[in-house]
Amino acid sequence: MTAEVVDRIEVSYRVSIGNAAEVAEAIRVEQTIEFPFDLAPEWIQETVVGRIENISENNVTVSYNPGVAGGGITQLLNVLWGNVSLFPGVRITGLRLPDSYLAGFRGPRFGIKGLRDLLNAPTGPLMCTAVKPMGTDPQGLGEIAAIIARAGFHIIKDDHGLADQPWARWTERTRVIAEHVKQARQEAGTNALYMPSLNVPADRLLDAAHEAKAAGAGALLVLPGVSGFDAMRMLADDDALALPIMAHPSFLGSNVVNPDQGIDHGILFGTLMRLAGADISIFPNYGGRFSFSPAECAQIKDLCHTPLGSINPSWPSPGGGMTLDRLDELTEFYGSDVALLIGGALHRGDLATNARAMVDALSA
Amino acid sequence: MTAEVVDRIEVSYRVSIGNAAEVAEAIRVEQTIEFPFDLAPEWIQETVVGRIENISENNVTVSYNPGVAGGGITQLLNVLWGNVSLFPGVRITGLRLPDSYLAGFRGPRFGIKGLRDLLNAPTGPLMCTAVKPMGTDPQGLGEIAAIIARAGFHIIKDDHGLADQPWARWTERTRVIAEHVKQARQEAGTNALYMPSLNVPADRLLDAAHEAKAAGAGALLVLPGVSGFDAMRMLADDDALALPIMAHPSFLGSNVVNPDQGIDHGILFGTLMRLAGADISIFPNYGGRFSFSPAECAQIKDLCHTPLGSINPSWPSPGGGMTLDRLDELTEFYGSDVALLIGGALHRGDLATNARAMVDALSA
Repeated sequence: MTAEVVDRIEVSYRVSIGNAAEVAEAIRVEQTIEFPFDLAPEWIQETVVGRIENISENNVTVSYNPGVAGGGITQLLNVLWGNVSLFPGVRITGLRLPDSYLAGFRGPRFGIKGLRDLLNAPTGPLMCTAVKPMGTDPQGLGEIAAIIARAGFHIIKDDHGLADQPWARWTERTRVIAEHVKQARQEAGTNALYMPSLNVPADRLLDAAHEAKAAGAGALLVLPGVSGFDAMRMLADDDALALPIMAHPSFLGSNVVNPDQGIDHGILFGTLMRLAGADISIFPNYGGRFSFSPAECAQIKDLCHTPLGSINPSWPSPGGGMTLDRLDELTEFYGSDVALLIGGALHRGDLATNARAMVDALSA
Repeated sequence: MTAEVVDRIEVSYRVSIGNAAEVAEAIRVEQTIEFPFDLAPEWIQETVVGRIENISENNVTVSYNPGVAGGGITQLLNVLWGNVSLFPGVRITGLRLPDSYLAGFRGPRFGIKGLRDLLNAPTGPLMCTAVKPMGTDPQGLGEIAAIIARAGFHIIKDDHGLADQPWARWTERTRVIAEHVKQARQEAGTNALYMPSLNVPADRLLDAAHEAKAAGAGALLVLPGVSGFDAMRMLADDDALALPIMAHPSFLGSNVVNPDQGIDHGILFGTLMRLAGADISIFPNYGGRFSFSPAECAQIKDLCHTPLGSINPSWPSPGGGMTLDRLDELTEFYGSDVALLIGGALHRGDLATNARAMVDALSA
């Protein structure tokens, strides 16, 4: 294998502290051999160390031999943002992965078409919401879920913070909510999927996913910033589970919200979430209670949808302080391949009335 | 359980964007119920929602019912830095965990005393280094490891980026290096522990750790930013493994390097790494090729060592561009309970001579 004949991984960085050429030199070594360049054998200098492809003002592009990123998502994350995450003033602004490398990833099992088929929702946005607030007992959460399922929402997830609290233990809560959603689906003829939060210890993750499926859960909420991106990939690739997966951005914010440091929003919440198997990727919508700009949200949408080897496109899922009166604006902005996540606002007034109004508004 | 009788988790935040009181109001709701406060039942407002304990200029302290963080490290990370990680201009500057909550965590199995006993190193810093560079075949890496083991280093880890690359596959590399270190120990009468990088897929993690132990590895390198903090805790708690664990900061940098956003260095690399079972916590030393300041490094050292319920203290492990001529300065700065991590500089000139000189310098 020589540096000349392989398709290479290309990463673009914006450098806002220090000299761009010097930082690029540091990056191409730091992300590969972590060793004085001049002491490395010549073939390692040429084949293993990253190669500077371009420097234009403070933007640099470094390419890597895909062999460097061998071993799956864990090592891809290292190559992209392992030690460089510790550099101030460096941000990943571009990522190009060759098809030959992408072929090693399955990506979202369902993606846009698969989830539309599963939900019998051939057109229009998906309607998603969360059962909450924390503190409510399993029966109470189940009743909330049932009301929303009857109204025709597509996905009803646990609030991601529902874990194993004294007010609602994980196993009982999952079982009770799944039962309520199942009954509501049957009564109302809807297709709602209940999605428990896999906010569980690492040694429980796979078993908990299977227990949830056995209890009737139709999808899974995963927290890759907490559980690891490859743990999500493991769940997505599990043929015995074969459930849609929604990724929550918990603990990942610092990677994107500092404009001169981190990873561009679309690369993290679009590309990397797809590689790690997320059918749906949650992020805070612009104009909500968080900080993302319209341009950042548009980048996420684009990188959820754009071709990526043979990997399925995914659903961008803007959430965080969404309200009924923004439905038109959001379907205009995101298009129809979007999973709208409506939260607490649904509970102001009568939940059943609000949920029904939301579904009606979107169907119109 | 009422808000009055439980020991509470206290988190201090520095707010540099927006009004501190308003941000504190948002945080105490966002990290718990994610629901309009006024719509929550009164008992949930009082018992489940966080409580503002103090506001002083732009510093706020919010306390949480430990029940909110029920379910282990995954939910503790959510409560501390789940959604708030998406807030610009907020940084965690303080964390107080009650002993009753800490009792749910085992922490580092060995800690400072346990690792000294295991290594028969009753005094002085530990000497650690990495086998590198990537691209070297298993035999070549094994020979490097053997030279270092013979010189009397305590810990010989894989470079964290060694995964399953074409030049050195994980299983063969681990076996070959472990054999070399074992033989070198026997020949030289030293106690070096070989520590493979568990940079492996999530569904291989636990098995890989056990395979490494069976092959002769004496410790494990874990990447909690990639594999998840609770995955590290799982390995640390495994009584059938019972190996010392070193945590690498890969992919975690954005959480600390932006001064007005993120988590204070000591809380992440000291407190949270200890909770998640790291006996040794690697971070970039001041004055090396990264960016941490002396004050930030001192904070890490302090929070590795300070009492934390019944949880063992851990070894701060400053690395990143360390050189021989800084040994005196570093033992002065960190004291003797430090695991010095020397990297590529050891290879400039003759490795055996340099390694020997390093051990001699430290013993003197």
